[in-house]
Amino acid sequence: MNRQQLIQQIKEKRSFLCVGLDIDINKVPKSLMEEVKREEDEEDCLYATLVEFGARIIDATAPYCVAYKPNLAFYEAYGLSGMAAYESIVEYLRENYPNHFIIADAKRGDIGNTSKMYAKTFFEGDAQADALTVAPYMGEDSVTPFLGYEGKWVVLLALTSNKGSQDFQLMEDKNGERLFEKVLRQSQQWGNDENMMYVVGATQGRMFEDIRKLVPNHFLLVPGVGAQGGSLQEVCQYGMNADCGLLVNSSRGIIYASSDKDFAEVAGQKAKELRDQMDEELKKAGI
Amino acid sequence: MNRQQLIQQIKEKRSFLCVGLDIDINKVPKSLMEEVKREEDEEDCLYATLVEFGARIIDATAPYCVAYKPNLAFYEAYGLSGMAAYESIVEYLRENYPNHFIIADAKRGDIGNTSKMYAKTFFEGDAQADALTVAPYMGEDSVTPFLGYEGKWVVLLALTSNKGSQDFQLMEDKNGERLFEKVLRQSQQWGNDENMMYVVGATQGRMFEDIRKLVPNHFLLVPGVGAQGGSLQEVCQYGMNADCGLLVNSSRGIIYASSDKDFAEVAGQKAKELRDQMDEELKKAGI
Repeated sequence: MNRQQLIQQIKEKRSFLCVGLDIDINKVPKSLMEEVKREEDEEDCLYATLVEFGARIIDATAPYCVAYKPNLAFYEAYGLSGMAAYESIVEYLRENYPNHFIIADAKRGDIGNTSKMYAKTFFEGDAQADALTVAPYMGEDSVTPFLGYEGKWVVLLALTSNKGSQDFQLMEDKNGERLFEKVLRQSQQWGNDENMMYVVGATQGRMFEDIRKLVPNHFLLVPGVGAQGGSLQEVCQYGMNADCGLLVNSSRGIIYASSDKDFAEVAGQKAKELRDQMDEELKKAGI
Repeated sequence: MNRQQLIQQIKEKRSFLCVGLDIDINKVPKSLMEEVKREEDEEDCLYATLVEFGARIIDATAPYCVAYKPNLAFYEAYGLSGMAAYESIVEYLRENYPNHFIIADAKRGDIGNTSKMYAKTFFEGDAQADALTVAPYMGEDSVTPFLGYEGKWVVLLALTSNKGSQDFQLMEDKNGERLFEKVLRQSQQWGNDENMMYVVGATQGRMFEDIRKLVPNHFLLVPGVGAQGGSLQEVCQYGMNADCGLLVNSSRGIIYASSDKDFAEVAGQKAKELRDQMDEELKKAGI
């Protein structure tokens, strides 16, 4: 999906919500697990539960969001069943919701020939994502192999939402440039606002002002609203640009909002609440 | 495997070689592919070829190395067949070569609850590695979830072997401390030389002197000898400590040394050549 199509989706849906699909089998409602167990034989149960949970969450939230972000750690942890579930969920999205943007949240990045293999994994084949999160520590040749795909995006880590973001990302050189600013500045020589976004945590508040000085036009993927304590209003006040330029992610606050039979319905309500707040923010910004 | 056991293996084998298992199906000898094809039905062919290639390389090189490093990118790129092959190769090593150290080279790292899931993937279950490579960009809470496992190791990226290592890792703060030095220094508050190693590229030459000032006792995982141009002698001159403290990796230079039927035999010879050079270096250091 290209930049214009993404902006179009945001305007049509009045939402820049990304729903994080961090499916933890221990948090899937028991009623759903039992339902799946009755229908499937033992072996397929884990796979079937993950896919069924994902599909129901997607069906309930799709009207209110423009993007989904499956977190690979949560699929890999269940071995081959988990990876098969990841592929099935991406294929389900591709078939049923072709206008939703899919971000594979995998934080990859390695030397050139290895990053090329990761690019193949996420950007080729049947279960293709639109974007992949990438860690910048290894520099240019670890990132560029992901940039050669038409309509695909790198989402580069800049200033993350966690406490550990303060350990290295705020390191300052003699000219006062911080590491995350160096990442924002230098990576613009590798890609542009049509194939690169940046991760900036919602917990970073007014730091969005500093970030917008360096990347006024780029999209920012913003995790940390909800469970991690970030404020949507603050993110919009300091981070929104004329095209919106934000994808705000919520995972746990939506997909585990209820652990009862009504989990999908409640997830839909939570997504709608965020969409309504986002609509307000878009209006405030004249979008 | 703990530190003492690893040092014991190095002394017994007169080797600190790690063989990188970056299995690229396009580089697997055609003769082996045909052999596998005759024995397996169509569907299992990719999986069976990867596992058979891996097993033969392992059998041929095991006497000359102390560690194996499967590179996850190369397995993930082949989807579920590839991931099944990764698991089978790790299980093959566990069963047949229990004294070899297994490093899952996956460069993971994310916020705490996500790193926990990655730790579960690589350090629990049937296909357990001894160590996992981790990217430091997201700081403390992205690394510590991997450190709670008895006998398991984090191999943290410090100064990598690729050209892009110069983009951010050499950034200097006002006191002259570089990013990779900050990573080496700060991470010692999270782990110690019994559960943490560092990646330092063989291409970094005399930088090993600076690194040893900060981490005199830690093991260093050193990629970049061979195809990437690093020198074993230089690495040993500046990087070896009283316990050896090095695991030097070679991937392409060993496993693709021949593309004919004799591929395993030649891989064994290449590994033996490196072992013999390592034996010399150990003697020079009085080990």
